[in-house]
Amino acid sequence: MSATVSPLAPTQVPEMPAIAGMRLATAAAGIRYAGRTDVLLALFAAGTSVAGVFTRSKCPSAPVEWCRDKLKSGKARVLVVNSGNANAFTGKSGRDACKFTARIAAKAAGCKSTEVFLASTGVIGEPLKAQAFDGVMEDLIARARPGDFLAAAEAIMTTDTFPKVATATAKIGKSKVTINGIAKGAGMIAPDMATMLCFVVTDAAISAAALQAMLRGGVTDTFNAVTIDGDTSTSDTLMMFATGQAQGCPRIARAADPRLKDFKKALLKVLANLSEQVARDGEGARKLVEIVVEGAVSKASARRIALSIANSPLVKTAIAGEDANWGRVVMAVGKAGEPANRDKLSIWFSGIRVAHKGARDPGYDEAVVSAEMKKPEIYLKVALGLGKGRDRVLTCDLTKEYVAINGDYRS
Amino acid sequence: MSATVSPLAPTQVPEMPAIAGMRLATAAAGIRYAGRTDVLLALFAAGTSVAGVFTRSKCPSAPVEWCRDKLKSGKARVLVVNSGNANAFTGKSGRDACKFTARIAAKAAGCKSTEVFLASTGVIGEPLKAQAFDGVMEDLIARARPGDFLAAAEAIMTTDTFPKVATATAKIGKSKVTINGIAKGAGMIAPDMATMLCFVVTDAAISAAALQAMLRGGVTDTFNAVTIDGDTSTSDTLMMFATGQAQGCPRIARAADPRLKDFKKALLKVLANLSEQVARDGEGARKLVEIVVEGAVSKASARRIALSIANSPLVKTAIAGEDANWGRVVMAVGKAGEPANRDKLSIWFSGIRVAHKGARDPGYDEAVVSAEMKKPEIYLKVALGLGKGRDRVLTCDLTKEYVAINGDYRS
Repeated sequence: MSATVSPLAPTQVPEMPAIAGMRLATAAAGIRYAGRTDVLLALFAAGTSVAGVFTRSKCPSAPVEWCRDKLKSGKARVLVVNSGNANAFTGKSGRDACKFTARIAAKAAGCKSTEVFLASTGVIGEPLKAQAFDGVMEDLIARARPGDFLAAAEAIMTTDTFPKVATATAKIGKSKVTINGIAKGAGMIAPDMATMLCFVVTDAAISAAALQAMLRGGVTDTFNAVTIDGDTSTSDTLMMFATGQAQGCPRIARAADPRLKDFKKALLKVLANLSEQVARDGEGARKLVEIVVEGAVSKASARRIALSIANSPLVKTAIAGEDANWGRVVMAVGKAGEPANRDKLSIWFSGIRVAHKGARDPGYDEAVVSAEMKKPEIYLKVALGLGKGRDRVLTCDLTKEYVAINGDYRS
Repeated sequence: MSATVSPLAPTQVPEMPAIAGMRLATAAAGIRYAGRTDVLLALFAAGTSVAGVFTRSKCPSAPVEWCRDKLKSGKARVLVVNSGNANAFTGKSGRDACKFTARIAAKAAGCKSTEVFLASTGVIGEPLKAQAFDGVMEDLIARARPGDFLAAAEAIMTTDTFPKVATATAKIGKSKVTINGIAKGAGMIAPDMATMLCFVVTDAAISAAALQAMLRGGVTDTFNAVTIDGDTSTSDTLMMFATGQAQGCPRIARAADPRLKDFKKALLKVLANLSEQVARDGEGARKLVEIVVEGAVSKASARRIALSIANSPLVKTAIAGEDANWGRVVMAVGKAGEPANRDKLSIWFSGIRVAHKGARDPGYDEAVVSAEMKKPEIYLKVALGLGKGRDRVLTCDLTKEYVAINGDYRS
């Protein structure tokens, strides 16, 4: 946690309603941090279904492997999340820590080990002392209450400068259901941090298979369209739980069920909101940057070009310097390896066209665009003029603070 | 040019011999900089053959397109290089600037326009005022002398903190030939800079086709194995000229000719030396980092994993902070998308094994490895334990100075 809240933090925190069938508690287990909570426990009613998407890393953390395996049943009763230690690259001791944590949680909650889900975020490569959970588990379960989601979001923070929560409601048939989500930020691995984590819960009655399909579809334009520094954590985890306790909610088996239309929209809203908060809290970020690429040969091609721009250190440092350096944007388009024609390329910074058809815009006025670059939100648009492919990604600038945060000694 | 020379600069500058059949001159044409040279002219004897490799950018600069086209003849008489303006993303005016420059150079040198090669490095998107060359061209040609290569390397510098030269000799048959090279650094586009440029010249008598094949082969483990920030310039250019004026040198037509064995070794030495100097002069660099990946399923896979590590902002900031943060190395291996097995992975920093078979090394001692991390040269080795693929890349750390250099206003 940082003493200085990101200048891009949302100015309002939504009131988070309780979710029927879910209880929450947090504790300070002393995993790494002093004077703050570092364990989150969530208890779910019997019959809660679960889905998840995880890091594509070939070196995933022990909890990621645990969750992937346990997801097969589609049922969840407990979620245990800790900050301070990622339990990644910890070999057999990491797997043992997962087993141990799940066992004591299952015992205290009265369920099966395989119904316990785990996530860890923090330093990589140091053994996780799971015994620490032993001292707080029974108390956590005893204290679990229908949800203080803000406290939950705080317990899982690492270098985040603000807790991230979002909520939305939707109709399924005649039933009003709620979707709550909490997240923590990315763009880091160690010193004492790692990972994007996000947990979404709803009181709707939706099968695990339908949840999984919606989650997989939902991340494409939200969490997968956000990048901080192009690095991929060993532990990225997004899980969704459906307790089925909303009054009068019909049980939905398939993601294609037309009754989910409104729910899908609300879910996308929650995921988009949380992923934008992650970008707003990128390490050292001073500018939120939205990058739109249009006129590409396909959406996938537009995505790759947008990510090439979003991950370019030269583009990101220019934005940190409030410089509408479209030459670097041309560079990033050119290096993406996707179809592009220099002489058809146009570029806008925050609505002002700075380059047109392969050359500086004839009406270019540095003073006008410089004034826009001083604002905290920058909109960068690139038109390729080749086809109808369009996509959008979010990122932040690259500042000296990023280097300071990530260049300090672990000790 | 920077007032502060990189702490990683070579301590000795080699004596650069003249190359028979090549003359050099530099001038201050006032393209962008005040009080320094910014144009380099090289004149080659009739019969000089030429080869080149260029940026893979889909948005290349006008001079890159010019050179690609003119290379077909394989013959060169003049090279004109300027710093201060990249003549990139300048539309028709950029093409016109190339034509104009080649025409006045050809006229003054008494050759064809198509025998004139061009390279520009500097700001992107601003029209290059090629008329500035008109004022200096005749004088440059009149003053051209058998080579002051250091002055030539100085004229093409942008944010480089030291001029880069290298030389080697080789035997072709009984003839002793010389290979000289000059380069300027990369890791930047604008404000007032761009591009890696490298020019190599030899007095050997080698056909354009053989030069081209050797150059293409030579860059794989030299210039293509160096990365500063993962960004790719619109203007990267490496050209090689063979004047054929070395005494008694047989004319070599094919790159496979066994008489080129010693020459190929010497050429690789020059390319490796210059590309290492580029890494040593990465913007803001305080550490030279050599990354070796072994035990991969192939050399290509090892290369991709090595580049994933070399381009990771988290790895690079950790090294800037003198932190042997192998957790981030695991992260970078995992995100490369190449075959990797976490539980077989071992990692060394400067000879000290810090991680073994998927967990922290049992003998890990932070004090010992921290002492190594304080040195200016860091050796990072990753063993994947899967196959025999091995590769090596060079990079530098990511410092606050990098952000400062690239985050300043253009104005």
